Amino acid sequence: MQAEIITIGDEILIGQIIDSNSAFIAKELNKIGVSIYQITSVQDDKEHILEALRQANERSQLIIMTGGLGPTKDDITKHTLCTYFDDVLVQDEKVLTHIEMLFAKYISTPISDLNRNQALVPSKAMVLHNAYGTAPGLWMENNGAVFLSLPGVPFEMKNLIANEVIPRVVKKFERPHIIHRTLMTYGMGESAVANTIENWEDSLPGFIKLAYLPSLGRVRLRLSAKGNDRLELERELERQIGLVKPLLGDIFYGEEEDGSIETLVGKLLTQKGMTLATAESFTGGKIAERVTAVPGASNYFKGTIVSYATETKVRLLGIEQALIDKHSVVSEEVAVAMAKKVKKLLDTDFSVATTGNAGPSKGDSDAEVGTVYIAVSTPHHTFAQKFTMGNHRERISQKSVNKAFELLQKEILNF
Amino acid sequence: MQAEIITIGDEILIGQIIDSNSAFIAKELNKIGVSIYQITSVQDDKEHILEALRQANERSQLIIMTGGLGPTKDDITKHTLCTYFDDVLVQDEKVLTHIEMLFAKYISTPISDLNRNQALVPSKAMVLHNAYGTAPGLWMENNGAVFLSLPGVPFEMKNLIANEVIPRVVKKFERPHIIHRTLMTYGMGESAVANTIENWEDSLPGFIKLAYLPSLGRVRLRLSAKGNDRLELERELERQIGLVKPLLGDIFYGEEEDGSIETLVGKLLTQKGMTLATAESFTGGKIAERVTAVPGASNYFKGTIVSYATETKVRLLGIEQALIDKHSVVSEEVAVAMAKKVKKLLDTDFSVATTGNAGPSKGDSDAEVGTVYIAVSTPHHTFAQKFTMGNHRERISQKSVNKAFELLQKEILNF
Repeated sequence: MQAEIITIGDEILIGQIIDSNSAFIAKELNKIGVSIYQITSVQDDKEHILEALRQANERSQLIIMTGGLGPTKDDITKHTLCTYFDDVLVQDEKVLTHIEMLFAKYISTPISDLNRNQALVPSKAMVLHNAYGTAPGLWMENNGAVFLSLPGVPFEMKNLIANEVIPRVVKKFERPHIIHRTLMTYGMGESAVANTIENWEDSLPGFIKLAYLPSLGRVRLRLSAKGNDRLELERELERQIGLVKPLLGDIFYGEEEDGSIETLVGKLLTQKGMTLATAESFTGGKIAERVTAVPGASNYFKGTIVSYATETKVRLLGIEQALIDKHSVVSEEVAVAMAKKVKKLLDTDFSVATTGNAGPSKGDSDAEVGTVYIAVSTPHHTFAQKFTMGNHRERISQKSVNKAFELLQKEILNF
Repeated sequence: MQAEIITIGDEILIGQIIDSNSAFIAKELNKIGVSIYQITSVQDDKEHILEALRQANERSQLIIMTGGLGPTKDDITKHTLCTYFDDVLVQDEKVLTHIEMLFAKYISTPISDLNRNQALVPSKAMVLHNAYGTAPGLWMENNGAVFLSLPGVPFEMKNLIANEVIPRVVKKFERPHIIHRTLMTYGMGESAVANTIENWEDSLPGFIKLAYLPSLGRVRLRLSAKGNDRLELERELERQIGLVKPLLGDIFYGEEEDGSIETLVGKLLTQKGMTLATAESFTGGKIAERVTAVPGASNYFKGTIVSYATETKVRLLGIEQALIDKHSVVSEEVAVAMAKKVKKLLDTDFSVATTGNAGPSKGDSDAEVGTVYIAVSTPHHTFAQKFTMGNHRERISQKSVNKAFELLQKEILNF
């Protein structure tokens, strides 16, 4: 049994929006052992959608459509489903009541016929309740195959998948177990990692697949086990991970299931009851943003000073102008001073500081584009490291943020 | 003439990565008048890729594949192309030299055969130089149709598209003109906007399509004109936009072509030679991050204080504890004080401050989850507005950041 996703909407095909819905749906289905065979993005065009449906129907038993609903899209997906299933639209009273309630409660503008028409659904469809929006989800069956239509608005779609779709799919289909575990490494390139674990990889059993996922100075190793005996899969994955960890050594820093590195850092700080502050120059608050994206960050994160202008480093952080003049604003000395100052100012146990040149121009220092210093201050000591992060503005800053978390995590582990 | 994109890689189909490459490619091709008919994501599987190639070949004249290259993927795309074109792999000396140069210059680990094998290319392929990576781009032709294979690593792919692919596509294919203009609005829902401009929309000429793109409290209106007379298209778009702007009134705040709202704010501040600072609580540096993502931000952005902990508001911003005790940390008074203090501390013309509760728990105040105050301080005055942003942590903070830029832009326009 396998599934397909069909996303409907010109905005994806002209590149105006990135299709993040499909990744979410694929992830959730994978968790219950349903593999996605293909994802197809088609236009807001009836014939095109029909063709995609026919092809998907030949290959897969579960076909999930997103988008093509909503008042200004003429609900093209609904009309197309009527054609495909030789059906007609009928008004669903429950949906209409829900739409009227949403308008009465949350929406300032008066309800229109456009909105009321969203209560029209194919007569053969089972309606899936869209708690957050006016476009209902639809579940239609055709000799064994299931066709789903979901709104394209991410948080409406996500809620439908979690509460309406997954429970029904679990009931409806026999599924094998698929378990993924992903090891996160940094500091070594893809092919170098591959060479390091070559023999181990060759010895993996057939029901475990290994994938290399390189990005921004990291390589994630995804192990996927597929079979009917969940316990056996888990046991073998555990065994294989036990074998590969020693081979990876200190380039391994955690499993993705444990969460991102900022989540790991947060867990460590919470356990130890210790606190963090950051002083950011060219990273412009990106470290703080990732720290605070973790629920509960207020337990350990006190704040940040983004000293984007050199003058702010002096005025707000209290870095001595003389130090900057002597070593330049992009220097080990200034990075160290920033980390010490912000730790003192915000009275924390740890701090991270960044100074560097992300380009495009050289800015307040003579440092080459891509030259960055990252400093970490702990209750015991403060140090800064120099890195050369290439010449791509966005990547320089992303790679530096990753690196800052890596340096910080290593230090926190010592406490 | 139309194009298709085929992305190759299990990681997209299990939802481990989001396909952002396709959006970039679609956008770049659209700029030169090439429409994308379909985007198809397939597995690292030869038969599956072959089937996708056959279908795309029946529909389109330009087929762009990304991914399925690289040492640990056994370069499956290359081998599949050999099957599809009945071709063999031969070593390309230029590519080999380039790979060896990259290793000598940037990569600490020794070069391996896995790496050298990336210099093997189909004998019928024209090689496209991948300046940033070891996997070359490939251009193959088959009675009028062009097949491209590009690496999946975004910054390598982007460089290939811009410097190797676009110029050749422009030479190779006759193309109509496609011009998009996107009007950005906020403060009104999708169907309410639709009602407001209904008559205008109905009177649009056939060669102009209108699309509504709602997201996070905004609706973008995309006008797409397609035809052979570029000047005529531009003239008519200009005329239609002149007609619709008055209908939209003050919910219109700019065109996407002018850039994001943070770019617009940056342009305004640069023109006026004025400066900005922010004090952020629950937004955790997101405003600063977006401000500094704009190249040249150092001309007007001085810095940020992320006072995530209440204590930091007192210690670093110098907010009086008494004020917080009296009004609570999530209040109009505290937001106003934050904006005033940070403006003074960093000596800027404008400042923005945020305080609120993004959940999941209530945190340092009694404010309901979703209650936020956003303050703006100008050379003339300081004010704060209260908003209720729902109960979705990520959306609360994203919507607040958008709103902050909107309030700020309106104020800057008065100077």
